Amino acid sequence: MTALRRSPEKIRLPLGFSFSAVAAGIKVSGRPDLALVDVWGQAPSPVQAERSSAAAGATAAALFTKNRVVAAPVEVGRRSLLSTGGRVRAVVVNSGNANCATGRAGTQACERVCREAGKLFGVSAAEIFPSSTGIIGVPLPAEKIHAKLPELIAARSATESSVLAFAQAIMTTDTRPKIASVRFRAASKEVTVLGIAKGAGMIHPQLATMLVYVFTDVSASPRELQFLLREACDDSLNCMSIDGDTSTNDTVLLLASGASGARVKDVRSRKKFSAALTAVCQSLAEQIVTDGEGVQHVIRLFVEQARSREEALLVARTIAHSALVKTAWAGADPNWGRILAAVGRCGAPIEPSRVQILIGSQKVCRNGVASEFNEQQAHRDLARPVCDIHVQLGRGRTSVRFLTTDLTAEYVRINADYST
Amino acid sequence: MTALRRSPEKIRLPLGFSFSAVAAGIKVSGRPDLALVDVWGQAPSPVQAERSSAAAGATAAALFTKNRVVAAPVEVGRRSLLSTGGRVRAVVVNSGNANCATGRAGTQACERVCREAGKLFGVSAAEIFPSSTGIIGVPLPAEKIHAKLPELIAARSATESSVLAFAQAIMTTDTRPKIASVRFRAASKEVTVLGIAKGAGMIHPQLATMLVYVFTDVSASPRELQFLLREACDDSLNCMSIDGDTSTNDTVLLLASGASGARVKDVRSRKKFSAALTAVCQSLAEQIVTDGEGVQHVIRLFVEQARSREEALLVARTIAHSALVKTAWAGADPNWGRILAAVGRCGAPIEPSRVQILIGSQKVCRNGVASEFNEQQAHRDLARPVCDIHVQLGRGRTSVRFLTTDLTAEYVRINADYST
Repeated sequence: MTALRRSPEKIRLPLGFSFSAVAAGIKVSGRPDLALVDVWGQAPSPVQAERSSAAAGATAAALFTKNRVVAAPVEVGRRSLLSTGGRVRAVVVNSGNANCATGRAGTQACERVCREAGKLFGVSAAEIFPSSTGIIGVPLPAEKIHAKLPELIAARSATESSVLAFAQAIMTTDTRPKIASVRFRAASKEVTVLGIAKGAGMIHPQLATMLVYVFTDVSASPRELQFLLREACDDSLNCMSIDGDTSTNDTVLLLASGASGARVKDVRSRKKFSAALTAVCQSLAEQIVTDGEGVQHVIRLFVEQARSREEALLVARTIAHSALVKTAWAGADPNWGRILAAVGRCGAPIEPSRVQILIGSQKVCRNGVASEFNEQQAHRDLARPVCDIHVQLGRGRTSVRFLTTDLTAEYVRINADYST
Repeated sequence: MTALRRSPEKIRLPLGFSFSAVAAGIKVSGRPDLALVDVWGQAPSPVQAERSSAAAGATAAALFTKNRVVAAPVEVGRRSLLSTGGRVRAVVVNSGNANCATGRAGTQACERVCREAGKLFGVSAAEIFPSSTGIIGVPLPAEKIHAKLPELIAARSATESSVLAFAQAIMTTDTRPKIASVRFRAASKEVTVLGIAKGAGMIHPQLATMLVYVFTDVSASPRELQFLLREACDDSLNCMSIDGDTSTNDTVLLLASGASGARVKDVRSRKKFSAALTAVCQSLAEQIVTDGEGVQHVIRLFVEQARSREEALLVARTIAHSALVKTAWAGADPNWGRILAAVGRCGAPIEPSRVQILIGSQKVCRNGVASEFNEQQAHRDLARPVCDIHVQLGRGRTSVRFLTTDLTAEYVRINADYST
């Protein structure tokens, strides 16, 4: 699960989910912009029968943006999960409009979409989880969504092609759909974890990221799922940044249908599940960064020998958000002085004379001072699609691996042309 | 002093200073890269006679970068000012090499330049104030500087053209020299304040900025000068950002020759001097931002109704450092949602529903929600060389005026090509 820029791999479907997508006319381009996941949660195993809510639907856990400006679906989705105690029957996502900074009318539009979809599924509005992504501050054309809901529901199926259709319909500036899946056996049951994500800009998640949906057929309580999801995200989706901007719509949703009949109660299967979940989230993080707006080079930044995880993340984020560092990377320029200058201004009590910097496998800065190195080799390393950079602080034993990107003229072009 | 992009104005020379510049071969281009200010401090007034140090030289105050990685000249200059109690005979500046991350050898090279220059002036090395700007991590070619010192000293003169030569020799990616001067009368004496600056990238000063030299012919103690300098910088050089990167070499130096015979002891002349100093620093800040790397649009960002100055600055900096906001400005795109999203993630407890945003004179966001506005007009306002944006937080009565810029493809080009 660690290779970057991989070719699309086989999509493994967890039991109990079906997917669909249609074009509702929200995107000006006319491309698909409305997507659905339905959880029918039919468990083939006797375990399912023990559950009180043996009907259709999943247990759910979610993480949301830490931005104080949040979109209507984040507000509504968070409230719904609380009121149902973490139960989701269906997810309705639109792209092309973020339904953010749209005030009371925006919240009402979102609630109406949930109510309409709820009626069609025969469940309460609170069991419909809403998401939106796209431009901020423009009213959501809710009537376009309502008109397409019956077609969207009729089209759903549990196939690879419908998963792909879902992944494509939630894209905005993404150039590729982002899908990862892992299958493993736990206590003689086959368990699948499938993740789908979108996001290519405004990426600097604070305990969440753009839109990420993870589906699994294990049986687990919302509380168990929440713990596992946070743990998996800390080492994946929370350790990446494209441009340092935290979105108003960031959402990570984990749904468990229980349809495999497997539970994750015992230590061993829980460990296996946790590893699968983390692998899926890491793959999605890599896919998001690799597809970052205008990105030519992905940097795997290893901040090592920090006193704490917070310190390591502070250093990683300061480097990853430095316009000067990122533009040097765009030119495959081994200008390590800019990295050192970013470390120096990060706010942590770093001693420059203890800092080592490696580009690829070469040490370019030793104890805060230039180290002899082959500049052509460093240039070639940085010119590759993915390059590792290690920054060692000489202060402790904590490391983080942080995924980030260069800042190119193409990023500027994409973002200077977005709304007008 | 408030107009941006002004044509060069008359240079007013304070008494007691002479300037020169030569090409020492540090810049690959062969352009002038070594500059000198000599303070001969000949006071025509009896006040001067009262001073114990009636000889050549100035009283001095300085502010330095808050980056923990500091260049050798910052380290040496700070130490020299302490050891002399704020006394400077001459300033020697080189461009083309920052003498940063060069270790002990870098410090020694800087000290040798000061020693050699001190010998030629007949003063101690500590009375020579050194500055360097350019690439980080490359050894300073000190021998090139030594070889040129006699020629540099011989060339000095108190003329407008030598001030211009100094301003040009300290440039790196700057496209224009940056000079501002103010003359006023205080207690029947004529007083002049002259400022010279360089800087076009790595601009996000933390109580200082790239290289700024301010010369005046008042008579004042280092302690008085320090207080006045900090006050003047707080509202000018500390309220701007081009790319959010704080340099390792940021230095603001204020030298007072005492040659006008005027003192700034009484409230009235102190006020006048303070106003002149602030006006010079504000003009230099505007000139630096206007000449920012690849800058097409300057934004005067007014953050208003904040609870404190710290809060207002936090909001201003988060907006000014957002890649998404800055690229929208590059496209003259009135995408206020990105500004609101930046406000939301700044860390201050902002209530989105109390936020108002104005682009030019139009309200584009009212109480955190889209406000009806003429989009074409907003686009035209943002397409001008300078545009005002107001962000009102609805929390208090504190305002800051923060100068910043767009982020263009040209910025990326300049910084992707700098060292290789």
